[in-house]
Amino acid sequence: MSKIFVDACFGKETPYTPVWMMRQAGRYLPEYMEVRAKAGNFLNLCHDPEKACEVTLQPVDILGVDAAILFSDILVVPNEMGMALDFVKGEGPIFASPVKNREDLDALVGGEEAADKLTYVYETIRLIKEKLAEDKALIGFTGAPWTLATYMIEGQGTKTYNICKKMMYSQPELLHSILRKVTDVVKLYMEKQIEAGIDVVQIFDSWAAAIEPAKYDEFSWSYMVEIAEYLKDKYPHIPVIMFPKGIPAFLDKIYGNFDVFGVDWGTPMALAKEKLGSRYVLQGNMEPCRLYSQEATKECIVSLVETMKDGRHIFNLGHGILPDIPVENAKFFVSQAQELSRRQ
Amino acid sequence: MSKIFVDACFGKETPYTPVWMMRQAGRYLPEYMEVRAKAGNFLNLCHDPEKACEVTLQPVDILGVDAAILFSDILVVPNEMGMALDFVKGEGPIFASPVKNREDLDALVGGEEAADKLTYVYETIRLIKEKLAEDKALIGFTGAPWTLATYMIEGQGTKTYNICKKMMYSQPELLHSILRKVTDVVKLYMEKQIEAGIDVVQIFDSWAAAIEPAKYDEFSWSYMVEIAEYLKDKYPHIPVIMFPKGIPAFLDKIYGNFDVFGVDWGTPMALAKEKLGSRYVLQGNMEPCRLYSQEATKECIVSLVETMKDGRHIFNLGHGILPDIPVENAKFFVSQAQELSRRQ
Repeated sequence: MSKIFVDACFGKETPYTPVWMMRQAGRYLPEYMEVRAKAGNFLNLCHDPEKACEVTLQPVDILGVDAAILFSDILVVPNEMGMALDFVKGEGPIFASPVKNREDLDALVGGEEAADKLTYVYETIRLIKEKLAEDKALIGFTGAPWTLATYMIEGQGTKTYNICKKMMYSQPELLHSILRKVTDVVKLYMEKQIEAGIDVVQIFDSWAAAIEPAKYDEFSWSYMVEIAEYLKDKYPHIPVIMFPKGIPAFLDKIYGNFDVFGVDWGTPMALAKEKLGSRYVLQGNMEPCRLYSQEATKECIVSLVETMKDGRHIFNLGHGILPDIPVENAKFFVSQAQELSRRQ
Repeated sequence: MSKIFVDACFGKETPYTPVWMMRQAGRYLPEYMEVRAKAGNFLNLCHDPEKACEVTLQPVDILGVDAAILFSDILVVPNEMGMALDFVKGEGPIFASPVKNREDLDALVGGEEAADKLTYVYETIRLIKEKLAEDKALIGFTGAPWTLATYMIEGQGTKTYNICKKMMYSQPELLHSILRKVTDVVKLYMEKQIEAGIDVVQIFDSWAAAIEPAKYDEFSWSYMVEIAEYLKDKYPHIPVIMFPKGIPAFLDKIYGNFDVFGVDWGTPMALAKEKLGSRYVLQGNMEPCRLYSQEATKECIVSLVETMKDGRHIFNLGHGILPDIPVENAKFFVSQAQELSRRQ
């Protein structure tokens, strides 16, 4: 059975434009909160294939999205490379011992050995694929090496990224060594996700905008493309989505062999279409806060349908859904996107 | 005596490209930390004209920048409109009672009455002008109404701006009323800064990037332009600098009567020049973290001189200087910018 989401990733004609939402398995869903409460905390939930499978499937059942996205966290990778990880309420993820120098980096587990430790992710994927309807796609994902490195180096979320950037400008070779080691793990990690059954790959570079335009390719994009092309060479039937958040200033510098470019809400879809639409399918990009209002949601859907009427498109938000969004508005987004894009 | 900085703002030929740094009167300077310690806290320092004058002048003496910028905070405006303000260590500014509805807004002091309360700012300006060398310019400033409104509505800094944006999409008329009231105060506030002696106005829209491109003009830029044009009509000899941070996606939508466009570090200077260089002088835009390395600093200065060799330019960082930058690197930036841009 063909999956409309996979078809759309390859730019094939589909009966309507498929839709999913970043962070769709999340806190705005009471059903998610229930499972998470049983798990105890966020990381336990990532480590528990039964429960992670359950929350992955919830938005498919409740909202009718066209794709599920594996419930996990990008930071399981550095965690299994040997960095102790904690999620502190109100503060987010904390690595108590960040990577400060080459010794810290050398102490981390790399390559196959690290990728092999992520068994709970592969097990979650196998469980999901047993239960997911055949016409729905399962998206697996990873953080981009740069985004992962920001947490590994800063030890936590940051507003200024000043520790990473001090390294970028004064010890670029050390930063490259970190990115190299992470990239090598991520390639194998995504390969194992594919072998376990995911239908589509998305690479999130959530902190792309933290790098100045002149340095972005060197410190992030080139590593992302290396991962994408490694996967495309071995698994050409698996679409790869790239989502570098916040780089509208240099879309014309985007290159590489992948299928879908994720457009964030700060980038006008018309601009993305002009710069990238002939080369890639475009995914996105409703401003997530429009979900507070059905009127604002509909206005955006109508505008996206119009902009993309002669383009190749997948509906999504331009960033993750927020915890206080009413579920009925999320449902409205999904159903309206599917309905208003339906081909006559 | 002519001021090179003011000349450059008007696009006149100058012997070299003048330079200043956002947040140049700040924590990276031991001399600043000393005065601040005596003041007790940040807000006290803003309220004390003698001490605010002293820290305003420090970077002129220590670094040799071509312009001083008034030491103050953008939040003194909502503070004097009647909102109790506190700066909490590690958390930043807090308004304990944010504006939630029309009653909260109506309770705030507006117009002339609010602008008249900012006497300590005008007194600081008068003191600075007595002491500042005649060939140096004094920049006065304000936050853009949108940026001020984000703090007034959220009550503090925010990563998601979800309270503001819920209002934007579900009660746009209330958000407009807040922006209107703030705009009316800011116009008079800047007029009084000019009457007190500032040579240049800068309007900071630090949170410009929090608004999606399709809504930016409606909720921010149009109010900024209203303020700029009010001032330009009355005081055509005072240059106005606009600094909306993070809008490279739609520079071609920028309009209005002002003199200088501040380019943030996420926007390539070549792009800003292509889109705006014929209409405005461009200010910026070194990535502040380059100041960790003199080599990275010099690389950027050389590149900016080359890009702007046939354009109209003022050197600056693309955002504020960070507290842990070595003072000698800040000096190096200033002296190299002046030297490498010197006309033969």
